[in-house]
Amino acid sequence: MSKHTKLNIGLFGFGVVGEGIFSVLKQTPSLNATIRKIAIKHLFKERNAPKELFTTDASEILFDPIINVVVELIDDAEAAYHIVSQALKQGKHVVSANKKMIAAHLPELIDLQKTHKVSLLYEAAVCGSIPVIRNLEEYYDNDLLHSFSGIVNGSTNYILTKMSQEKWCYDEALKQAQQLGFAESDPGLDVEGKDAVNKLAIVLKHAYGIDVHPTNILHQGITHLHEKDTQYAAEKGNTIKLVANAVCINKQEVIAFVLPTFVGASNKLSSVDNEYNGVLIGSKLADEQFLYGKGAGRYPTSSAVLSDIAALRYQYKYEYKKSSSLPEYTLSQQAVLRIYVSYSAQHQSLIDDLIRVEEQYTCEQRNYCIGTIYLKTLIHVPWFYKQGVSTVLVSIIPDLDSKDNMEIAELDYSVETIYN
Amino acid sequence: MSKHTKLNIGLFGFGVVGEGIFSVLKQTPSLNATIRKIAIKHLFKERNAPKELFTTDASEILFDPIINVVVELIDDAEAAYHIVSQALKQGKHVVSANKKMIAAHLPELIDLQKTHKVSLLYEAAVCGSIPVIRNLEEYYDNDLLHSFSGIVNGSTNYILTKMSQEKWCYDEALKQAQQLGFAESDPGLDVEGKDAVNKLAIVLKHAYGIDVHPTNILHQGITHLHEKDTQYAAEKGNTIKLVANAVCINKQEVIAFVLPTFVGASNKLSSVDNEYNGVLIGSKLADEQFLYGKGAGRYPTSSAVLSDIAALRYQYKYEYKKSSSLPEYTLSQQAVLRIYVSYSAQHQSLIDDLIRVEEQYTCEQRNYCIGTIYLKTLIHVPWFYKQGVSTVLVSIIPDLDSKDNMEIAELDYSVETIYN
Repeated sequence: MSKHTKLNIGLFGFGVVGEGIFSVLKQTPSLNATIRKIAIKHLFKERNAPKELFTTDASEILFDPIINVVVELIDDAEAAYHIVSQALKQGKHVVSANKKMIAAHLPELIDLQKTHKVSLLYEAAVCGSIPVIRNLEEYYDNDLLHSFSGIVNGSTNYILTKMSQEKWCYDEALKQAQQLGFAESDPGLDVEGKDAVNKLAIVLKHAYGIDVHPTNILHQGITHLHEKDTQYAAEKGNTIKLVANAVCINKQEVIAFVLPTFVGASNKLSSVDNEYNGVLIGSKLADEQFLYGKGAGRYPTSSAVLSDIAALRYQYKYEYKKSSSLPEYTLSQQAVLRIYVSYSAQHQSLIDDLIRVEEQYTCEQRNYCIGTIYLKTLIHVPWFYKQGVSTVLVSIIPDLDSKDNMEIAELDYSVETIYN
Repeated sequence: MSKHTKLNIGLFGFGVVGEGIFSVLKQTPSLNATIRKIAIKHLFKERNAPKELFTTDASEILFDPIINVVVELIDDAEAAYHIVSQALKQGKHVVSANKKMIAAHLPELIDLQKTHKVSLLYEAAVCGSIPVIRNLEEYYDNDLLHSFSGIVNGSTNYILTKMSQEKWCYDEALKQAQQLGFAESDPGLDVEGKDAVNKLAIVLKHAYGIDVHPTNILHQGITHLHEKDTQYAAEKGNTIKLVANAVCINKQEVIAFVLPTFVGASNKLSSVDNEYNGVLIGSKLADEQFLYGKGAGRYPTSSAVLSDIAALRYQYKYEYKKSSSLPEYTLSQQAVLRIYVSYSAQHQSLIDDLIRVEEQYTCEQRNYCIGTIYLKTLIHVPWFYKQGVSTVLVSIIPDLDSKDNMEIAELDYSVETIYN
């Protein structure tokens, strides 16, 4: 596609984002992009666009030679994968916001891009309007990235904020998040940490060149959290945030997981409230950087999708530079986590799995302990996955047994070492 | 320069940043970039690089056909302009961190890039390691930018932080900033707001396509601030920050200035302390975004310069897209500012220049008033430039007389309307 080629867009899905894109493109002739066809499930609904644009037949877009760009904005990840891979095979560039689909199929999607010499852009898939992927890909390219720590799911962050600041209960906060349109259509994706881990898998590729399926990354959402946990956090001057972490532990290895985390007031992530997202990027030269903005919703997602559409005019494609450059990183479990675990009495034996129990508290309603555990242990212990047990990260301790250990201090997000 | 061409670099200046770049490039063979020659002023100093690399003769770099990239890191803006323009004319790509030089000569430098089909990159010139220019240029390209508000000078921010948090006096804080290496070699550039306004001029080009010489932008640094001002800010729950503003007031006009500003605790800029920089970007779709990181110093500047060098491998150049796209913006003075002015008794008559005085206070040490003034008036009143008068921005009020006014609310950085 040569510079400033007209973009003839086939759009899949006409929800709030699709409608937003349609309306902005109409108002922005300078973009030189027109929506030629819109594929939807049901024709009979009222839509804010001319009737003749709509079709229920995907092939009217996928096999139309005039259409050179497909914008995929549907919910169903498997259907989206079918559409996107077909479009790429037909030599069309694709813009997608579907993190679940991208995280699950990234290696195949990269192959398709290479084979068919087309570009697949998905800035909206991670932190909505915040340009995370593009900056990891382009800007943090030669500076050694120590860590990525992000609040990447607006829905759970909204719920946690309301629970901590307004003392709402979980159900009330979730309902409100759904009403405000922050939550995914399947809220399980949000609250169980699956949306966050999908985003983390994409980040791992662009930050470190690591291919990993999201199901292979340790993750826990916010459904296990007990009201005592929120209370405990507040007493110690922390808040609980759901943080997606990728931390470089030595010159070849990165650890990654999504966990509820105690965050102290001096940490920039503590200032990320409600539906906002925020990302802390730690690097050798640039030190600490913080990117903050709206991670979801009609307009922020539209903004990111539009940026991708605009970038296609300039033949932009992700180079996946980290995958071919040195050092070559692999995902590791060689780390020790300091965790707070709260649990009902029946799970008392879980403390046997800790390397060291530093603090222990029992009461009739709920017990808790603070201690250290190997990351590789935490992944395998059954109690971690049980509803009656809630695990909150206190800090990350580089594995002192590892020879090639980086000279990094314990990564502590909280105000103070909790057990003082 | 085709993809992955070897970069043969001629370096001008070997201060802390130059030395950092030299050391990182040596350790990063994957960048495929080598420093071939280093031009310096004095040969006799001890340097951390092989002796044979150094020269005092600029032409050994500028006219060496092997050298395809010039990295300019010297202090003297006029000498830097001579070097950079010569290098561009010789068909060499250039990376520079010299905001003063770039702000003063941007139109000529853009012409030279076009004429000689070369690229001039200068991400380090604005907010050091924070990728501000690249994101304004590439990412905030199709979303309507409402405003850019930034703490863009680390040295003054360090001084203001120490004055407010540690109650240091101005001189003590300045001295410490200089010792820590945050301050420019000529501290006047920092404390008089000249460095900030240079950066703002560059931002105006990339955010709005506006060409303006920095001397034509209203600016005041922190040298006029009185200890009573800091005290007053604290009493009202605000802090004083030096903020560079570019605000879109209607579909064709932008106002811009650098002023000390009352910032409330809920504003993200209030969390930018010490030598850090932070930028709030307001846009129609993405809403509010915040970018934060180290704005100056050896490593953050090196990080940005390295990113530019790396980008040259991929033929990256600024497209200056806003200059050729619609709407076409011009710099305007059609706005009303609400300001706090503190002054010694002899300047009492300044209140006659205000549209409305909302609050007035006199005491033996210092008087102050709060009121509204036309931006176009403020630029011309002599008292604004007098040492005995200190002006702090409270809020920006869109000019209600203007017909094409945007529906934006008063832009208020502070905790509360001060005069309640």
